[in-house]
Amino acid sequence: MSKPFEKVALLGLGLIGSSIAHAIRAYGGARSISGHAKSAETLKVAAELKLADTFHADPAEAVKGADLIILCVPVGACGPLAAAISPAVGAGAIITDVGSVKGAIVRDVGPHVPSHAHFIPGHPIAGTEQSGPRAGFAELFQNRWCILTPVAGTPQERITALEDFWKGFGSRVEVMGAEHHDLVLAMTSHLPHLIAYNSVATAADLEEVTQSEVIKFSAGGFRDLTRIASSDPTMWRDVFLNNKDAVLEMLGRFTEELAVLQRAIRWGDGETLFNLFSRAREIRRGIIAAGQDTAAPNFGRDPRKG
Amino acid sequence: MSKPFEKVALLGLGLIGSSIAHAIRAYGGARSISGHAKSAETLKVAAELKLADTFHADPAEAVKGADLIILCVPVGACGPLAAAISPAVGAGAIITDVGSVKGAIVRDVGPHVPSHAHFIPGHPIAGTEQSGPRAGFAELFQNRWCILTPVAGTPQERITALEDFWKGFGSRVEVMGAEHHDLVLAMTSHLPHLIAYNSVATAADLEEVTQSEVIKFSAGGFRDLTRIASSDPTMWRDVFLNNKDAVLEMLGRFTEELAVLQRAIRWGDGETLFNLFSRAREIRRGIIAAGQDTAAPNFGRDPRKG
Repeated sequence: MSKPFEKVALLGLGLIGSSIAHAIRAYGGARSISGHAKSAETLKVAAELKLADTFHADPAEAVKGADLIILCVPVGACGPLAAAISPAVGAGAIITDVGSVKGAIVRDVGPHVPSHAHFIPGHPIAGTEQSGPRAGFAELFQNRWCILTPVAGTPQERITALEDFWKGFGSRVEVMGAEHHDLVLAMTSHLPHLIAYNSVATAADLEEVTQSEVIKFSAGGFRDLTRIASSDPTMWRDVFLNNKDAVLEMLGRFTEELAVLQRAIRWGDGETLFNLFSRAREIRRGIIAAGQDTAAPNFGRDPRKG
Repeated sequence: MSKPFEKVALLGLGLIGSSIAHAIRAYGGARSISGHAKSAETLKVAAELKLADTFHADPAEAVKGADLIILCVPVGACGPLAAAISPAVGAGAIITDVGSVKGAIVRDVGPHVPSHAHFIPGHPIAGTEQSGPRAGFAELFQNRWCILTPVAGTPQERITALEDFWKGFGSRVEVMGAEHHDLVLAMTSHLPHLIAYNSVATAADLEEVTQSEVIKFSAGGFRDLTRIASSDPTMWRDVFLNNKDAVLEMLGRFTEELAVLQRAIRWGDGETLFNLFSRAREIRRGIIAAGQDTAAPNFGRDPRKG
């Protein structure tokens, strides 16, 4: 393992930023933490929760002396934030982020990274439907993958140092290109969120079925989609605005497949339906075997509550 | 509360049938249980688990002397099963079912219900992604809604008796028409399953993204869909074949909404995305307030596993 960072600057203290803070307290990875948040309210809550050692309304103040700088804000806010801190970034510091899109981060943050610093975009594939500084917890990254998309020319030793930082939280790390990341995540994360949001919007607009009925009888599947669809709207707006091509590509494939299913339903083609439905269990089994979901029925929900 | 039934015949001993058996053992509702399953293997497992007092390869044998007969088989199997038991159904017995579609049950089962019996189609909105006789557990119906769609002329006292049976398992009961049921469930259950199955099919067919990547990076949302999509394929084939009109109606609305979202992404219309995404949290809050899902992040999954 690499030695811990001296000082980590967490810029943004929502679900991910606060979880990193808790994880550092629990598992190490840095000797001290400086924290910044745009909103005074978030900074106040973060101070109450002792999420950092020092708190700064000015992000440039937070990054002074930091050898690891993590942008934990929505993708659309990363460019301006990087511009604001640029003059204060020290020699040899690593700048990384946690955004769900990587190409746009390279495009928007890259130009603001001083030549004496290292730029290693990152994405921990971990989260919950909750947001804000109170939502974080130390175990969030346990057993989750973190993807790094270092820019060309980054010293391997610096990449390894950041890998070890994430591994210390129980994460597994994979390195790939930003473009490939955006394609993979369009399928495994962005499309699922899009259709979850869309399902909830469809349900909200029905005339013949009341909102109260949708809520009461949601245990048949719909409630699962509402969890995904209650994720932070700003974060997700930015994802879709910044991963347009890959999302539209996956959405096109989804719609094409859906037309096949629709036709099978219309024509009563049970064989097509059965065959397609049967294939899905295999991928589910793979996900459980890979430690990426629980095998417990209904995600292990408490039957009396969930 | 009505007095318990003398003898319940469970025809089909998969997830729902076996859960009813466990629930009767745990909470009452019947003095004895007779069990039938089409497959010899299921009957054998059910006998090992003592899911009933008597086991019958012939469903007509199982219903003899039963004052409550519950069809716990896929919707498409209910008509033939009802025909097979029809001559053995006793005077005053209630015939009900647990199918996710009600109009087709009225159509297929109704003609086989003897005039001396009562026909009260039912649907407990409860389940997991697992199936078979080992999947059941007594708490499955706790806090879940059960919808009854009694046919015209059913004595209120008989409806109340069946309501009390479900209430004894911790369920809440609502009575409505079969057609309305099918419309509501098309939205809250059938459409979510359809798009979950479709997402998994889309992911399975990608060329640029490997199956292994889809599995590894599924924690960003996709894994939730795979749970729904690993439900029993026969059951779900029958749902879609038997609730065609309502499903196609909801699917049409879903696709329409999706086109609006697609356009907003293509044109970079962040305001439309943000407004639509913001609305979804309210429905989620309603579902949690109504006791239909847990408020715990990630459904309360164990962070080390889930």
